[in-house]
Amino acid sequence: MARFVRRIPEGDNRERLVCADCDHIAYEIPKVVVGSVVVADGAVLMCRRAIEPRTGYWTLPAGYLELGETIEEGAMREAREEAQADIVLDGILAVFSIARIGQVQVIFRARFADEPTRHFAPGPESLEVGMFAWDAIPWDSIAFPSVRWALDAWRQSGPGPLGPPVGNPADDRRGTRRMTGPAQEAGL
Amino acid sequence: MARFVRRIPEGDNRERLVCADCDHIAYEIPKVVVGSVVVADGAVLMCRRAIEPRTGYWTLPAGYLELGETIEEGAMREAREEAQADIVLDGILAVFSIARIGQVQVIFRARFADEPTRHFAPGPESLEVGMFAWDAIPWDSIAFPSVRWALDAWRQSGPGPLGPPVGNPADDRRGTRRMTGPAQEAGL
Repeated sequence: MARFVRRIPEGDNRERLVCADCDHIAYEIPKVVVGSVVVADGAVLMCRRAIEPRTGYWTLPAGYLELGETIEEGAMREAREEAQADIVLDGILAVFSIARIGQVQVIFRARFADEPTRHFAPGPESLEVGMFAWDAIPWDSIAFPSVRWALDAWRQSGPGPLGPPVGNPADDRRGTRRMTGPAQEAGL
Repeated sequence: MARFVRRIPEGDNRERLVCADCDHIAYEIPKVVVGSVVVADGAVLMCRRAIEPRTGYWTLPAGYLELGETIEEGAMREAREEAQADIVLDGILAVFSIARIGQVQVIFRARFADEPTRHFAPGPESLEVGMFAWDAIPWDSIAFPSVRWALDAWRQSGPGPLGPPVGNPADDRRGTRRMTGPAQEAGL
């Protein structure tokens, strides 16, 4: 395994992780997460996680953008991978910064591409997948704070044309808080 | 220097760059660029690049988001670093995907924080910095296609409240085209 040391590389002005064996600089850069609030008849598509972290908790179809993808392609791929759903994107619903873990999340509002069939099923990273009306959302078993933020953004913006993207909530502008309750115990 | 080979690491499903010496996986992940269209009296703040690539060409104050920053903090830092300007963000003007080089760009519309002084001056990465009315923008010396896209987004959206973020132009949805003209010769 690589052994990394923290130092300022020549020509830089910040400490970086540098491999002690080969001098490779492992830039710790923010990661882009793309995901969707997929809506049909006022209900939203959610996935129960089959993988760590937060196995067993509910999330939106979302994940890391891959190199060479557009944000739109990434969001559509995640819906296919996690919920076996083909989706059409309405536009950007929210953009969140989670500074604590170096993430920028771009969340779209989306619809099923195969209306009125609306096929969905668990992908390999999901234990189960379901459509939830607002009051039926498993609020006590949400995987991450930003899932709640995205659901709130959807609720606030309504079903009409999208406006400016929603940002972090006022009480966590930098994305530094952890979940409260069971999630807090899980270190999230 | 690290010698990297391309192979699929155990438990993954894509080829990654793996160090032949130490097995470190250099994930090639998309990078987040944050920047601003800083507006005053219908003119926009632009910087002439002192660094490669595209030295001598004009750009907006923008750069890579650093770990631990929010997108807003990153955009404000870049305006300070490149144009010595303190800015206030109105909101997100545009979100672009440049799939060819693995970038997601979040571009804000902004104003000077020190109105009516509007202090700006070249930072270490800029040869000169100036305010340009639309017709005075150095269109023949723009550094990157996305600079033009952001300026177009500003022009289209006008000075009022921001709407949904502008995305890639219709003729380059994936962000794969290079500049035409002098920029093309520079390989951009």
